[in-house]
Parts: sequence; structure tokens; C-alpha cells
Amino acid sequence: MENGQIPENANEHCPGPQSESAGKSESCEGCPNQQICATAPKGPDPDLVAIAERMATVKHKILILSGKGGVGKSTFSAQLSYALAAMDFQVGLLDIDICGPSIPKMLGLEGQEIHQSNLGWSPVYVESNLGVMSIGFMLPDPDDAVIWRGPRKNALIKQFLKDVDWGELDFLIVDAPPGTSDEHISIVQDLGAASIDGAIIVTTPQQVSLIDVRKEVSFCKKVGVQVLGVVENMSGLCQPMMAASKYLRMTEAGEEKDVTEWVREYVKEKAPELLNVIALNEVFDNSGGGAARMCTEMGVPFLGKVPLDPELCKAAEEGRSCFVDQKSGTSASALKKIIDKMMENQGISRVLVDNDA
Amino acid sequence: MENGQIPENANEHCPGPQSESAGKSESCEGCPNQQICATAPKGPDPDLVAIAERMATVKHKILILSGKGGVGKSTFSAQLSYALAAMDFQVGLLDIDICGPSIPKMLGLEGQEIHQSNLGWSPVYVESNLGVMSIGFMLPDPDDAVIWRGPRKNALIKQFLKDVDWGELDFLIVDAPPGTSDEHISIVQDLGAASIDGAIIVTTPQQVSLIDVRKEVSFCKKVGVQVLGVVENMSGLCQPMMAASKYLRMTEAGEEKDVTEWVREYVKEKAPELLNVIALNEVFDNSGGGAARMCTEMGVPFLGKVPLDPELCKAAEEGRSCFVDQKSGTSASALKKIIDKMMENQGISRVLVDNDA
Repeated sequence: MENGQIPENANEHCPGPQSESAGKSESCEGCPNQQICATAPKGPDPDLVAIAERMATVKHKILILSGKGGVGKSTFSAQLSYALAAMDFQVGLLDIDICGPSIPKMLGLEGQEIHQSNLGWSPVYVESNLGVMSIGFMLPDPDDAVIWRGPRKNALIKQFLKDVDWGELDFLIVDAPPGTSDEHISIVQDLGAASIDGAIIVTTPQQVSLIDVRKEVSFCKKVGVQVLGVVENMSGLCQPMMAASKYLRMTEAGEEKDVTEWVREYVKEKAPELLNVIALNEVFDNSGGGAARMCTEMGVPFLGKVPLDPELCKAAEEGRSCFVDQKSGTSASALKKIIDKMMENQGISRVLVDNDA
Repeated sequence: MENGQIPENANEHCPGPQSESAGKSESCEGCPNQQICATAPKGPDPDLVAIAERMATVKHKILILSGKGGVGKSTFSAQLSYALAAMDFQVGLLDIDICGPSIPKMLGLEGQEIHQSNLGWSPVYVESNLGVMSIGFMLPDPDDAVIWRGPRKNALIKQFLKDVDWGELDFLIVDAPPGTSDEHISIVQDLGAASIDGAIIVTTPQQVSLIDVRKEVSFCKKVGVQVLGVVENMSGLCQPMMAASKYLRMTEAGEEKDVTEWVREYVKEKAPELLNVIALNEVFDNSGGGAARMCTEMGVPFLGKVPLDPELCKAAEEGRSCFVDQKSGTSASALKKIIDKMMENQGISRVLVDNDA
């Protein structure tokens, strides 16, 4: 049980362990914490004081949320951090996905370890102005499952906020796991909703994903965190028409026949102009109007769409910034526009450093 | 706190609240539960007895897991349930994703409610031999966030197992959220690892997803649940070459120009044979060998690949079986093969009823 917060196994209408009536109120009858609450010392949680001190040197705190997993939230968090660092901001990226940390891989930091100094835990640095913290740096074997229930996850998140020596930061980007449970409640309670600039919610155009985004928006409203905006990711697959890895044709017997070589020759000879054409395939059904319409309905800003780009996926897999070369052209320019819009909405200005800089 | 299980906020080396030394052992010093444990009545958890009675009429229990979210786990669970029901099995589908329940939508059951009888909670039925249970049926407003910490989620999962009147079932399919935390520990503890046939793990070919699958496999090994196999989902986008929604060309000024109508005319005139060609686009980088190679390394069965098929996504969005018509040709046949293989491995035989039946 943590001081200052309602214990997880408390009765309904718990007055809170810091309250004068803790353990003594009617609603405390039969609560497993009754005795401890009645006798425990009262006062502000010393951990929250320590967190507030640590965070005093952090200008902006942004949560990256998603209702559903696998929508590209960690990819977005990673590329947002790269982009802000390229704008010469001091950036910290905190991964609070305890059971499935993807951030170390996406920043090219697999196998790195955290060092301790008398100032606290040192983040792992990608560049001098981009530091990263994740449980991924603490696992002896990357295949190990972190089989932890909520309270243990919450304690680690608290420690990340209290003990990491970020130094002066312009931005602390917090990559949360999908959902609205322990990690989310903890980060908001520990940081204090008022001190968080807001949350960016990442989704795909699918209805099933949008349903969960609505839950995420309602979570933000309930806990008092501003929604900075919604990003629609995987908005169709954008790829050169002739870049498919294989071409097939169904035979009359209903079997698939590989016709890759024939197609390539045929196009070269009969329709060479197709070689310069880019095809946009809808992957997910977005007949419901996608995230843009949902944003209008829920009264939150829509920040933009990012296409599903195999080159962006590759950059994420290889732990690279998608902004340093031209490979992820369409997706990188979409991401840039989204980040610019978010910064503009927040009244923060500094221009993205040139690709060639 | 629940009887019979280690409390979430227990000290390390907790002897367990049922132990004779509960509250009295050295490791209990300073534990918030010390007093309750020392005085609470000992004996088997009555809930676990009730669950065992309820589950006595269920022949096979299969968990569907994924390390990462958004890999199509719920789509797979839904289509597996449809397929088993089409084979004339009695099927129950239990959704234990408390914060992001997608199952009601994927079975076409949005807006349905649960009814209570003196036998317990009645599942919502898609067909007479396919019943579904999910927290999604209990939310007054589908946009509401379920902001619950672990213990409350665990209590609901227990209730799902204890109080749902499934009747006689051939299969209980349990769709779990991503990760290895409260929901996963609870379902294994509540059902008892030995009574679970095993787990199917769903992944995409991406490295970031495969990293988390390894964690899921190690979870299964630690808790003693057999891995029935791994399914690789979203293995490339499989679609007619001319089915893209838009074709673009980059102008010399670096701007995108919509050339959709021109491309369609051009192909019809110059290269009409392309109209029958199916293109397979790799969406996620699978240069690491994908799930098949990981399975060999970890010594678990590989069940097969399912391509990313917009028609399958659509069936999931609309809450339909992908097996009843020919629209989801490639993905439906891949799913069928995977289910057959799983059944064969488990020594269960019954043939999938014909599409037209």
C-alpha cells in the first residue's frame, strides 16, 4: 500500500489513508487495511515530494497513449523523441510499458544497461540531448517475462520518476502501455495531472481501435489530463506499385501460381509508366470516417494521419530516426506535420533542423 | 486480498495466507497484511472450489495470448470460435481484456446485455452453440473507460469463471489482453495451470512483436501452461494488384499527384492481364526469419501464417465469420489450415462443416 493513495483493495467510499477518519469511518468496516490506516502516520507522501523536486527541471511532460496495442504508439513516441532532439531540444523518453518494453529496440539501444551515480539512475543516451529509460535495460535476459501484478509495476514507475537523473529537460515523453489501468493511474497520480502538458493518443482507422480511443479520451477527461490531439496511424499502405515481393494468379483449379517474373517483364514491356506509380492500399476499413470524425464528435484536436510505410516500420525495427534520410519520405513528412501542429497548438516554436544538418 | 493467493502487496518470500506460518514467519515482518494473515481462517479458497465445479463441464480450455497488442489476437480468437462452432462444437468465448474489450464488436454483439438467472450469468449467444462473455456487455456507455487497477480486474475474472453459466462446452476460448500481468496470472491461478489445455500465441513478423512473444513463451513455461503453437498474423498484405484506392505519382517539384483514373485506363488498354494478378506486399520487415524461426529456437510448434487481408479486417469490424463466404479467400484458408493443425496436434478430430452447409 502506498501512502496518500487509495489502496487497491480498499472498500468503496474509502476516505483515503491520509484522511483523519482513515480506518475509523463507517465505510472502513471490514476493509483489510482498516487497522493499518487507523494507526499509520498521516501526512503528505514523501515520494510525491521527491518526484516534484525531480520534475522541477522538466519543462514539458507529454504522455503518449493508445486504447489498443499495436497501433504504432511506441514507434510514434520514438520518432517524436528523435524529431524533438533534432530540433535541439533536451529530450527524455520514459517507457512505462513494464511487461512489453519496445523502446530500447526502437531507439537502437538493445543490450544497454543503466548506470547508477550519487545523483540517481542515469538514462541511456542515444545522443547527448536524448536520454531513455525503460525496464528493458534492467532485464538479465531479454526473453524473460516480467510477470508482475499492478503494485509492483506502480512501484517501479514511481522509482523511474523519483530516481532517474534526467537533468534539465525541455520534453519528457512518456510512452504508456495500451489501456487505462495501473500504469496510467499511477503516472497521472505520481506526476499530478496539473503538471502534465497533456496526452497524444495514437490509433489506427479501424473501428475496434477507435472504440478504445474513446475510452482513452474519457480517461483523460476523468483524471484531468488535456488531450493534445489524436494521431491516425497506418492510414493505408503507401508503396511503389511494382514493389510487391510476389505476384500471384489463381489457376482454374483454384490454386495460387507465382507469376512474379512474368508480371515484371510484362509491365516493363507493355506498361513501363507504372514503374513510377505509387499505390495507396486501404488496409483497415475506415468507412466509419476514421479518427478525424471521432475527434469532431468528442471535441478533441485531430493532429493528422501517418500512412503505413514499410520503410518507417524498418526504421523502428532497426532503431533509427526516420528523419535523417529520404527513405521514409511519405511517413516522415506526415510525422513532421503532426509534430509541427502539436507544437503550434501548444505555442512552442523551434524549427526542425534540416535533414542534411 | 483474496484467500489462497499471495496478496499483491505482500513481502518477498511470503509463505502464503493459507500457510500455518502466515503472519508469523520472519518474512512477514512489516508486511501490511501481517495482522490479517495471522488471524484469518485457513483452508482452501472457496472460490477456487466453485470455479472447479463450474469448469467440470468444459472439455478443452485454450488461452489466446500475445506479447504485443494489435497483432490480431482478438480477430483470431473470434474467427477460431466461429470455426469451432461451424464444426458443431459447443463453444464459449471469454474476453478477459477488461480495459479494451473488442470481442463484442468482433462477434457482432455490440449493445447486447448479460442476463442473470438462478444458474448464474448467461453468456450472450451468437448461435446456439457459440456463447460469449465480456465486460463490454456490462458498460452503460461503450465510450466509458474502465479505470481499474489489478485487484478489481482480477475479481471480475474470477467472477467470470465462477458465475457464468456456460453449460456443457467442448471449448472455452479465453482471449487475454497483451502482456504478462494481472489478468494472465489470475486466469492461470484461477483455472489451475494443469486444467488448461494450452495457449496459442499470436504475433506479427516484426522483431518488436517477436521479442514480446518470447516473453509470452517464457511466461507459459514458468506457470506450467503448454504452448499449443504460435500463429504469425499480418504476414504481408495480399490484395488484387488493381484494388488500391488511389494511385499517385511524384511531380518534379516533389509533390504528390493523383493519377488514379489515368492508371486504371492505362492498365485496361496496355496491360489488361494485370487485372487478374494478386500482389503480396511485405508490410513488416521479416528479415529476421519471422515467427517460424523463433519457434524453432524456442522449441514450440509453429502453426502457420495468416496474410494481412483487408477482407478479414472487414469481417472482424463487422462482426462476421470469415468462413461463410468466399470474400476472405486467402486468409480464411490460412486460418482453416492453422486450426486443423492445432486440432491434429491435440488429437481432436472433427471436420469443418462446408461453407455452404
